[in-house]
Order: sequence, then C-alpha cells, then structure tokens
Amino acid sequence: FCHHICMVDIVIVGSVALDSVKTPFGAVSDALGGAASYSAFAASFFSKPGIVGIVGSDFPREHLELFRSRNISTAGIKISNGKTFRWSGYYEYDMNQAHTTDTQLNAFENFSPSIPEDYKSAKNLFLANIDPSLQLSVLEQMTPSLVVADTMNYWIEKKKEQLLEVIKKSNVFLLNDSEARELFKTTNLISAGRKILALGPGAVIIKKGEHGALLLTDGKIFSLPGYPLENVRDPTGAGDSFAGAFIGYLSKSGFDENSVRKAVVYGSAVASFNVEDFSLNRLKKIAMNDIEARYKEFEAMVKF
Amino acid sequence: FCHHICMVDIVIVGSVALDSVKTPFGAVSDALGGAASYSAFAASFFSKPGIVGIVGSDFPREHLELFRSRNISTAGIKISNGKTFRWSGYYEYDMNQAHTTDTQLNAFENFSPSIPEDYKSAKNLFLANIDPSLQLSVLEQMTPSLVVADTMNYWIEKKKEQLLEVIKKSNVFLLNDSEARELFKTTNLISAGRKILALGPGAVIIKKGEHGALLLTDGKIFSLPGYPLENVRDPTGAGDSFAGAFIGYLSKSGFDENSVRKAVVYGSAVASFNVEDFSLNRLKKIAMNDIEARYKEFEAMVKF
Repeated sequence: FCHHICMVDIVIVGSVALDSVKTPFGAVSDALGGAASYSAFAASFFSKPGIVGIVGSDFPREHLELFRSRNISTAGIKISNGKTFRWSGYYEYDMNQAHTTDTQLNAFENFSPSIPEDYKSAKNLFLANIDPSLQLSVLEQMTPSLVVADTMNYWIEKKKEQLLEVIKKSNVFLLNDSEARELFKTTNLISAGRKILALGPGAVIIKKGEHGALLLTDGKIFSLPGYPLENVRDPTGAGDSFAGAFIGYLSKSGFDENSVRKAVVYGSAVASFNVEDFSLNRLKKIAMNDIEARYKEFEAMVKF
Repeated sequence: FCHHICMVDIVIVGSVALDSVKTPFGAVSDALGGAASYSAFAASFFSKPGIVGIVGSDFPREHLELFRSRNISTAGIKISNGKTFRWSGYYEYDMNQAHTTDTQLNAFENFSPSIPEDYKSAKNLFLANIDPSLQLSVLEQMTPSLVVADTMNYWIEKKKEQLLEVIKKSNVFLLNDSEARELFKTTNLISAGRKILALGPGAVIIKKGEHGALLLTDGKIFSLPGYPLENVRDPTGAGDSFAGAFIGYLSKSGFDENSVRKAVVYGSAVASFNVEDFSLNRLKKIAMNDIEARYKEFEAMVKF
C-alpha cells in the first residue's frame, strides 16, 4: 500500500499508545492514543505523513488499518515483542490539567527511532514529545527543510541541555505556557518566547489550552484566542493534533509569516474538533470542509 | 468650570478611593483609586464623563483638579465629613488575583447616589461595581439610552436577585470569568454568557485578565486576546479602565456589532496601559495617539 511509490511529505516521530482516560464526560479504556497517532491523523487532512514509532504485538491491527485508510504511512512503525505503551489518566472539570494514574512504557522503553530509507527525502519533520536525545538522533538521519519540535516538562527538568540542542536545530518549537515559564524561569510568556527565538528557531508557538496560542516570530507576535467550545469531552491529544495540522498545512504552503499564522489557525481548528470526543473519535468523523468552516469561524471571531 | 454649559456625555457611578497597593514591582500608599476614578479617566480620552461618587474631607484637592484637567465633571462627587474609602491589597507574581488586606469603607458606607440635574440628560451610563440596590436607584433617576454595568463576586453571593434586576436593565453587562462561572454555576463561559444575554442585555463582556476578553452578542462571539505585556506593574483598575474606554468609545459611535467590537479593543488598549504603572500614573502620561497605536498593534496581532 503506497510503498516506494508515494513518498511521505512529513515524517512524524513519536509515541503510538493505548490510552485509558476518564473525564467528567465519559471514559475509554485502551483506546488509540499517543502523540504520533494524533498528529499524523491531523496532518493527513493536509498532506501525506508517515509515522516512526514502536508498538507491541498486542497493538490492534485495526489501528494500523485506520492510519492506512487515511493515507498515513505505517512503514516506520516497528512492531516489537511485548506490549504497547499504555497511559492512564483523568481530568477533572478544569481540563487544562491531566492527572496521570499509570504509565507503562513497555515497548516504548526501548524506542530508538530508525528512519526508513523511503522517508529520508521528506522535507518536513515533526519531532513529537520524546526524549530529546532521540529527537537529536532523528536529526542525524535526515535533513528536512522544516523541523517542528515539541517537548514536555519532564525533559525540561531531566534533559535540558539536549533539549536546548533540539531547539537550536528546529525551525518551529512548540511548547505550552507552563513549560515556557519553566524553561527560562520567568512568568512572562513573551520573554520566554523571545529567549527561544534567540536560540535559532524562526518561530515559537506557546500553546495556552483553552486560551489559545501565541506565535512569536522575528519581532512579531500573533495571538489567536481559543475556539469557544461548549462541549469539551477529552482534551487528550489537543497539542498533538494542533501540531499535526500545523505542519500539515505548512508542508503545502511554505514557511512565511502569513502561512505560519494560517497554520496556527488550522492547528487550532483541528485541535478544537479533537477535544470534542475521546481518542481519535471526533477526527474520524470530520472532513476538510468541516475544518474550513471552523477556520472561517475563527476569522469571524477575531474580526473588528 | 464647565458648569451648566457643557453637559456630560457619560455618567459614571462608583467608588473614588485611596488605595494602598503592593506588587512584586513596587508599592503605593493612599494613591488615587476606585472604579469611578479609573473608568472616568479612561473615558475622558473619548468623551466627557461626569462622576457620581462620595469622598471624605481628607480627599486631596489635587485629585479633583486632575479630574477637571481631563474635562471630567466632578459636580456629582459629594464631599462628606469623615474619611475617604480606603482599600489596601497586594498581588503576587500571578497578578490575576488581588489579595485584600484591609477595606475601610468610611464615607462610602453611606453612599446613596444622587444624580445631579445637569447629568440626567446624559445618554450613557456606566454603573461601576457597587451594591446592585444602589445601581437600581440610579436607573430610577435617569433614562440613558446606553447602560453599561459591572459587578463583583460579593454581590453575586449577597444580592443576587437585585443583581439580576440590574442585568435585565443593562445594555451591556461586564464581568470577569470567575464571576461568570459563579453567577450561573457553570465552568463554561460561553453558556454563562448566553444565560446573561437571555436576561436582556444586547451584549455581555467576559473579562479574562491577561487572556483577553470575550464579547457575546446575539448569536455572535468576538474574542480578543490579551495584549502581550512584558511589564505589568499593578493590575488594579484594569477592568475599570477597560469599561471607561469601552463606554467612552461607544458614546461617540453608536451601538452596533462593529462598534461594540471596536470598543472592546479600545477598552483593552487603555487597560493595557493602565497596568504598566501604579494608580493612574500611566494613564496620566498617554495621549489618544498612544491609544490608537496600541489599537493598531491589536489589529496586527490578530490578523491572519
């Protein structure tokens, strides 16, 4: 299926997981999750992504079929002996904060990303949240023209030096507001963002959950408010689906100020759908015209 | 000085106070404060406000002169025996939360707003945060075409019924995010806003501090992100200066969707200046062209 013939446009390196999530609005058990799953699915509305990840032999075949049905290459997903990475957590009414109850790394513990030959010519790379040492190893295997990277607070605390190397080698660095504050020990998001830009990236995006996203580029600030959702059922994967749609749009548009701003809006639109249901359930039900409609809602919402 | 001859455009009813405030960036003692002071000063960039309030005999004459120098009518400020209302509080690094250390109502305890004859024909009224029973008594004394009203959590808890009456009689109701959630016991700001609109106002504005403001009108949502400030010194008066500039702009523009959105931007622009220094110190130093420049910065910041 689409092997050797259609090359991938975007390589996505990250976790493929089985999540058990509980929120005030429902629960799922061993549902498809992981940063690479969410971001690849979101990117697939715009472009052709390929996943580099690892799962266990227990990983349901239907999930791989789902990816392929979306024209997402699964050639980079290694199926190892043992079990798939599992994450369990819950959210309370303040859904900005995930509470982890259990993490079983399983196969993911030995993840050492190996980029398939077919993927190496891809021009776009999304380094989802994994150990920055692994992110650096990916950057040694390929030389894409656009590198978008994400992280989490754990790596800021445990592997700051390697993380700073990743930032230096990225074109766009993504992080959330609390991570930005922690990285440079400042309460001020703008000055944290400027410090990241000073390391090298052309753009930094600070995700503020329900409050939207800030984009900082050279001397410019773009601020997009959050989409006013009345029914958030499960915020898991919001940041990853944002990132996937973001790089998906950029892979087709080029990397100028105007395109990066539009990519932030597309990222926010897809993320706003994602949180309306558990796992990838909402993204499975939407099409590009739904995303375009929400994009137009953002336009109407900020116009004055 | 401007008596009987130039009528006021906007009547502002609320507190005039002496504030002692401490933040991580400095402190002031017995500085000019109070909702009516901030909002009237902010409105004076756009229009001619008059204050209805009460102070004690200790109220420094220079503050009244400051108001008059801005073409703010002080004919409605009663100077009573006794002392002026004093508020003391502090903010920590998270400046979204004011911590009150002392409140001395003094003269304000017996405040019973009496609208001067000269003010009664004013077409615009801002009911700043005071006891909703007093807000209702103002609405019995005059029939402005535009009523903008504010409140605080205390009145939601203590005088909810009277507050709902005020909301019913307002054209625009202002409140902050935590108040909106508390008023209708919901975490969802949009549904809280819709419930307020259902009571009668043509517009509701939910202020989200550093995260900006939401404007809900019939079937429409306008979301303005916060101005990305790097140096917030004292957030006191942000909401009041927002409200003053908001009604100031509207008093000249008329009450249509487009104008109300622009008024939200002007309100946010003036509030963003206000928090850059203590008391009214920053507002004293700016002119209309500074406000217009910041308005244009908002335009550039949300454009995509």
